[in-house]
Amino acid sequence: MVVAGQAEGRLAAFLARWRDPLEDRLRAYAAPGADCPARLSEALTYALLAPGKRIRPMLVLMAAELCGADPTEALPAACAVEMIHTYSLVHDDLPAMDDDDLRRGRPTCHVVYGEANGILVGDALQAMAFQALSEDIPDGSVAARCVAALARAAGPSALVGGQFDDLSAESLPATMETLQAIHRRKTGALLTVSLELGGLVAGGTAEQLDSLRRYGAAIGLCFQITDDLLDATGSSEDVGKRTGKDTDKHKLTFANLIGIEASRDAARQWAGQACAALESFGERAGALVELAQFVLERDR
Amino acid sequence: MVVAGQAEGRLAAFLARWRDPLEDRLRAYAAPGADCPARLSEALTYALLAPGKRIRPMLVLMAAELCGADPTEALPAACAVEMIHTYSLVHDDLPAMDDDDLRRGRPTCHVVYGEANGILVGDALQAMAFQALSEDIPDGSVAARCVAALARAAGPSALVGGQFDDLSAESLPATMETLQAIHRRKTGALLTVSLELGGLVAGGTAEQLDSLRRYGAAIGLCFQITDDLLDATGSSEDVGKRTGKDTDKHKLTFANLIGIEASRDAARQWAGQACAALESFGERAGALVELAQFVLERDR
Repeated sequence: MVVAGQAEGRLAAFLARWRDPLEDRLRAYAAPGADCPARLSEALTYALLAPGKRIRPMLVLMAAELCGADPTEALPAACAVEMIHTYSLVHDDLPAMDDDDLRRGRPTCHVVYGEANGILVGDALQAMAFQALSEDIPDGSVAARCVAALARAAGPSALVGGQFDDLSAESLPATMETLQAIHRRKTGALLTVSLELGGLVAGGTAEQLDSLRRYGAAIGLCFQITDDLLDATGSSEDVGKRTGKDTDKHKLTFANLIGIEASRDAARQWAGQACAALESFGERAGALVELAQFVLERDR
Repeated sequence: MVVAGQAEGRLAAFLARWRDPLEDRLRAYAAPGADCPARLSEALTYALLAPGKRIRPMLVLMAAELCGADPTEALPAACAVEMIHTYSLVHDDLPAMDDDDLRRGRPTCHVVYGEANGILVGDALQAMAFQALSEDIPDGSVAARCVAALARAAGPSALVGGQFDDLSAESLPATMETLQAIHRRKTGALLTVSLELGGLVAGGTAEQLDSLRRYGAAIGLCFQITDDLLDATGSSEDVGKRTGKDTDKHKLTFANLIGIEASRDAARQWAGQACAALESFGERAGALVELAQFVLERDR
């Protein structure tokens, strides 16, 4: 489920306008053709079309519009980001990783399709993301810049490195620095590159891209803090995935490290910094400003 | 270990010339910088620098030279192909997949670094492959074409799709058509794209790219048949990975389907077709012709 129902004003209008085109494009990508085994395509659809907030692809589309493009041009990049996000969820949920059986309110991919196929679904989604960027962004040099940005965000110095450290966080110093370094890579990099890709597709200026990246980094930390808070305070039924697991494990989280109230304060500060980064865009940044507010106040 | 010692003539000279530059570049890619956890970089090095035949990256370099380029220009693409190949081996060896504990004569990645990290090493290598192509091929539109070709070869209609069908091959009709459809995607696509990437980096003509692809498809089937034969007839010590496993499982293989002798004949025929595809290159294709012979006669 997209967040439309829970958001207001310009954000709600944007989400309502772009939800169906995005879902349609994702559905098309999940059926890549006759050489793809039918059951694999079914599993790709199950994973990619699962009800999700679609925050990352919507960030791509909003950033593209903010830099002057028709969001339609950014749909391949939006889908690519959602593919990377979905692959990381499918792999993170595997028994050898976080071992989760509930995701987006439904059984996780490996529970439905088996563990081997869960690994393969994630692997396929990652390749599909780079295929979408390279085949469906008409300007080759823009496509190459998008691939480079997304590959860095998905690679060992970002998404994978953050997850790697998160799995062994018990052996790292339990400090705010460690925690932010994990989340900057595990969550922040993909949110940041979502905005960057939208700007790249739209031919945004270096200054615009820099503003978008700063917004992305700030909203990424805000997002992760609220994620921790939802885990600490929400029910599985409301949140759509197993909650309370981080407290169980005495895991390094914002809530465990500085407590619930200080975490809420920090989330507010990061949301404020996110909005400040967009000041040069003026009124046109309205939807992204509202999104920062939504991330701060989200209840799932 | 690269095949240099086992090959002759022009192939041996090419392999001897390019082995060290290739290994050096792979080693550099396996250490992507400070944001990559040190132990992840160690695991990437373990997987990527494991003694291997390096057939795929050498195909990239040979194809580039054949189309008139300095192979140095094709090193990023050569490394990208080896990264995709290595990631697929690391994931295929996981307990949920083929559950192998020996690869390239050493314990498999997940045996040394744990199952979760084995998954992450493969995930990182895939992203790194697309990063290498997009960042290190100077011409953006050539880079985008290379990304598109490699992503297709690695995706659900090729590498992943072939592995998906291979895992459930018992439920598919045990025919030569099924078997070739699996191997065309699981093995052939990556060998074929290796040649294609070399041609693309070198700015090869459409005719040259077509010849290279036909060579790749033929050598791919030859390679898979000899792989089956090695599994059926070789010892683990000689081959460097567990053998006899396909017979154990009554798996769909060339050896199981048409027998050892008919498989040897088929391998010879495909090697011949591979060489025929390169006729328009004349004498200059000498190293690739020798490589087809090497694949046919390889004993590991």
